[in-house]
Amino acid sequence: MYDIAIVGAGPAGLSAAISARSRNKEVLVLSNKPEESRLAKAKLITNYAGMPAVSGLEILETMIGQAGDLGVTLIYERVTTIASTGEYFVLSAGQDAYDARSVILAPGTNNAKPYPGENEYLGRGVSHCATCDGMFYKHANVVVVGLNNESVKEANFLNEIGSKVTFLSTKPVEGLADNIETLTGSPVEIKGDKLGVTEVVYKTAETGELETIYCAGVFILRPQIAPDTLMSGLAVQDGRIAVDEKLQTSYTGVFAAGDCLGEPLYVAKAVGEGQLACYHAVEYLG
Amino acid sequence: MYDIAIVGAGPAGLSAAISARSRNKEVLVLSNKPEESRLAKAKLITNYAGMPAVSGLEILETMIGQAGDLGVTLIYERVTTIASTGEYFVLSAGQDAYDARSVILAPGTNNAKPYPGENEYLGRGVSHCATCDGMFYKHANVVVVGLNNESVKEANFLNEIGSKVTFLSTKPVEGLADNIETLTGSPVEIKGDKLGVTEVVYKTAETGELETIYCAGVFILRPQIAPDTLMSGLAVQDGRIAVDEKLQTSYTGVFAAGDCLGEPLYVAKAVGEGQLACYHAVEYLG
Repeated sequence: MYDIAIVGAGPAGLSAAISARSRNKEVLVLSNKPEESRLAKAKLITNYAGMPAVSGLEILETMIGQAGDLGVTLIYERVTTIASTGEYFVLSAGQDAYDARSVILAPGTNNAKPYPGENEYLGRGVSHCATCDGMFYKHANVVVVGLNNESVKEANFLNEIGSKVTFLSTKPVEGLADNIETLTGSPVEIKGDKLGVTEVVYKTAETGELETIYCAGVFILRPQIAPDTLMSGLAVQDGRIAVDEKLQTSYTGVFAAGDCLGEPLYVAKAVGEGQLACYHAVEYLG
Repeated sequence: MYDIAIVGAGPAGLSAAISARSRNKEVLVLSNKPEESRLAKAKLITNYAGMPAVSGLEILETMIGQAGDLGVTLIYERVTTIASTGEYFVLSAGQDAYDARSVILAPGTNNAKPYPGENEYLGRGVSHCATCDGMFYKHANVVVVGLNNESVKEANFLNEIGSKVTFLSTKPVEGLADNIETLTGSPVEIKGDKLGVTEVVYKTAETGELETIYCAGVFILRPQIAPDTLMSGLAVQDGRIAVDEKLQTSYTGVFAAGDCLGEPLYVAKAVGEGQLACYHAVEYLG
């Protein structure tokens, strides 16, 4: 049981983690790999006080090292769901689950809009995690929409457990098992009936024409999962996680910090909010 | 005419300044010397993400260097008043005045409570700046309550222009002109009549007895000046500068950041708020 589980290892999440360790709390950070983040792509950042003229990746690496030295547990696994037991929180990531007494959400921005039908069929054929839900589709036709770096691994996992996999991505990828069918294009709509998903309509990269793949399951694997998908019923306003003046979300004991709270998307703002969220989480833990 | 004048060169003020330069604004920072700040006394800070295990002074020196490299103008002068012309702001510091289109207040905490009578007689015998108001007391008896590092210099200035100076401080100080009377103790009350100050009652350091000094002026020279003394009518709540969600104070175009907004008094929070105040100041400047 961790005191604080933090979702996201960007400046907000790492600042919260660093701050929490200096308050002597047991801290777990679950995150995508740093290379996948928006910040990692920034070549030169001049406006973070204390680190003159650095790259985004240097900022991340410094903060990750600092967090590690202070005893933060950092696991590179994508969190797929967070559930409240009423007493504590359970975070599912990959095939593992982690318990924590409080949570800080610092997942960054989520620019992706759901595909038409995606939210409608979520849990009825649409999934955001193959290793979590793959077993339900053992012998079925499934589509993997590969939008993140682990999509290939997840598609191969589905293939191994006996699903018939079609891999759909905007560009060809490497490393897929031989018997996985590959298509290049983008989903246009997820369709189904009252039992669940029946097909994915997509636009082909080559000709722009619409094609249909018949399937029982579709795994949409994005770099980020929308916060209210992550945590059912979480209040979101204009695409931002809604928080009060203590940075607490609509769930008591769940706080949020950084880009997920809206503009400006600055390192300093994120770091400040991360520390503040930690301050209030520690207060909440009592 | 500066775009943004910033009061205070702690993490909040420097973060605002650094951020403003990266937005290509002309920036002036007016501040006490870094050695006088609360942060400079911190031997080890572990919870500022990006700068593992540093002293407070190292943080300040890094940020001051960074700001300087980006072209921030930093002047070590205590701001004594800020006035609005309706179009822009005039900041008085020492014997100079500076114009700016917007202001960010980042003066840090002000723990000092005013002495009884201090606010009542402010401008009618009580002053916070000898070099500003000394001329009004050219041949009069004045008391200097020496609470900051420049008190000796200011007392000598008053002595030079012909005031009869009594220097009151909790401990003996060095460097005062020979004809300045020195007393050790603390003010208990500033008294006066309808024309202004007539006496300072103080408790002697030696015996704890109350004594009276008759005078026409009393210069109370603190490390910080209370925000609502600095800027007449500035809204303050529970000792904090009151701001809206854009960190704007009760004056349009005047923003605030850092410890002056309240706890927690963390570097990261201050840096984040400094950047945010800058963001909204730039928005205000249009």
